[in-house]
Amino acid sequence: MARAVLAGDVRAAARLMRDAEDDVAGAREALRVLYAHTGRARLLGVTGAPGVGKSTLVDRLVERLRAAGRTVGVVAVDPSSPFTGGAILGDRVRMQRHSGDRGVYIRSMATRGALGGLARATMDVVRVLDAMGFDDVLVETVGVGQDEVDVSRIADAVLVVLVPGLGDEVQSLKAGILEIADVFVVNKSDREGADRVVQELNGAMSLGSGARADRPSFVPAIVKTVASRGEGVDALVGAVDAFLAAGEGWAAGAARRRAQAEVQAVVEAEVRAQVAARLADGQVLDDLVARRRDPWTVAAEILAEARARA
Amino acid sequence: MARAVLAGDVRAAARLMRDAEDDVAGAREALRVLYAHTGRARLLGVTGAPGVGKSTLVDRLVERLRAAGRTVGVVAVDPSSPFTGGAILGDRVRMQRHSGDRGVYIRSMATRGALGGLARATMDVVRVLDAMGFDDVLVETVGVGQDEVDVSRIADAVLVVLVPGLGDEVQSLKAGILEIADVFVVNKSDREGADRVVQELNGAMSLGSGARADRPSFVPAIVKTVASRGEGVDALVGAVDAFLAAGEGWAAGAARRRAQAEVQAVVEAEVRAQVAARLADGQVLDDLVARRRDPWTVAAEILAEARARA
Repeated sequence: MARAVLAGDVRAAARLMRDAEDDVAGAREALRVLYAHTGRARLLGVTGAPGVGKSTLVDRLVERLRAAGRTVGVVAVDPSSPFTGGAILGDRVRMQRHSGDRGVYIRSMATRGALGGLARATMDVVRVLDAMGFDDVLVETVGVGQDEVDVSRIADAVLVVLVPGLGDEVQSLKAGILEIADVFVVNKSDREGADRVVQELNGAMSLGSGARADRPSFVPAIVKTVASRGEGVDALVGAVDAFLAAGEGWAAGAARRRAQAEVQAVVEAEVRAQVAARLADGQVLDDLVARRRDPWTVAAEILAEARARA
Repeated sequence: MARAVLAGDVRAAARLMRDAEDDVAGAREALRVLYAHTGRARLLGVTGAPGVGKSTLVDRLVERLRAAGRTVGVVAVDPSSPFTGGAILGDRVRMQRHSGDRGVYIRSMATRGALGGLARATMDVVRVLDAMGFDDVLVETVGVGQDEVDVSRIADAVLVVLVPGLGDEVQSLKAGILEIADVFVVNKSDREGADRVVQELNGAMSLGSGARADRPSFVPAIVKTVASRGEGVDALVGAVDAFLAAGEGWAAGAARRRAQAEVQAVVEAEVRAQVAARLADGQVLDDLVARRRDPWTVAAEILAEARARA
């Protein structure tokens, strides 16, 4: 299967991505083989709150990158269905715009709450696209929180998308958002208040609230866009190129952060499966609910079993 | 320390929560002792996208629950600062409204990206509040994604807060939101479009898109509120009471889900620490970046070491 993926077999790739998401036996071995062929794509994270227009922006980015002769994979991490794991139709709708273009591949992922974990599954899909030879892989995530932090760990550049008029509470998000942003995008910038968003970002950054230990003096670019009309997208691509070109140190850091995140995701997926297996018979859960045992003791037992499987 | 917490020593409790968040040695032993004294509080999750007014709503809920003679702990999981782990001032501002009332305790948590993990730290803080004897513990989370799923795993009841006018993209979130909601809150319902939100929720639910395997025929209540004026909050408290009263089967299920989530959080925190320790010297990361080794092999080695520490 790995050989078919490397040979450019799109069906084999789609199947491997599905198997990887479902953590099917065999997928891991193929991913292991592919790993030596990864690390060449540029991984760009696009993140922001619901309603800021990320999907439209990603569509426009795909357009521009294609026009520049680059091939593009898109992984849309969508928050639907944490329990059933069902995907959403956005995929198919968006595929149509680029259908027939073999230089574009779009894949939506459902949020997997339980086994395996979204971070692991997303990384697997990104790896497959990377191994397939796509020049750029865009990873689009919704929401604010752990997902965004995870994206920032696997991406070479993180684009944080904001819009005017999302209210005061969004301001309180900035502390977190500032720290993961490599480039800010103020989308829907034809709306009232766009300049105020830019101002506030500049203000927050001048207060140093976006400073990260690994880059205390870095100041992210701020690009205004109207994605629905394609405005500002060239400037955005330019800002991303400039960031990646200037930031060779960061890019190297990104590769290491990604490697660490990859190991962590694999380990966590493994122990999640072990936790589920250990608790499957119900007796342990009953003991916990009745306070006859405690989570730390049970956790220690599971970790002790980990060696046998590893 | 555990004894002081059980005796109602608020300072000891605050210190234990801080130690637990930072995963300080000794905190775990205290939590282990406290565990036998937990499981009595009602755990209510309050979740929704940024800007829907969760904080105001939680404030009003605290007011009403206090008026009914119940003591209340609040854990506000805020998305600030995934990297530095700094907290936000919201805490102190909100504390003032209830300052002097020993029946209320509010604690904000920063999103911890790295060691330990937010889920584990949140559970620890909830456990301390539970052991302190608070009747209700409200856990407020921002964003949509893994955090929300985690809340739904530890809560006896999950309140999902929506508002009119958040745009089309929010609709696409509903698939996920429907499944974790025990009660829907349409806040800011004096705004145009509130009835449409209610309609859309009803429509989506009648299509069965909120059905969970463990409760196929359950239909969450929908309560309209204007939290800023306190409107609808009594009805909301009533809906939560009704849900918990009617759902004894679910409540038992919640305790088991929580136990499983607790074990998982402890195990994950443990292996995260091990991953960090194993990768600290940099050589392994260099090997991964250069593709001399792969994440699965490294993960297997870490799991093999897990036994020694467990």
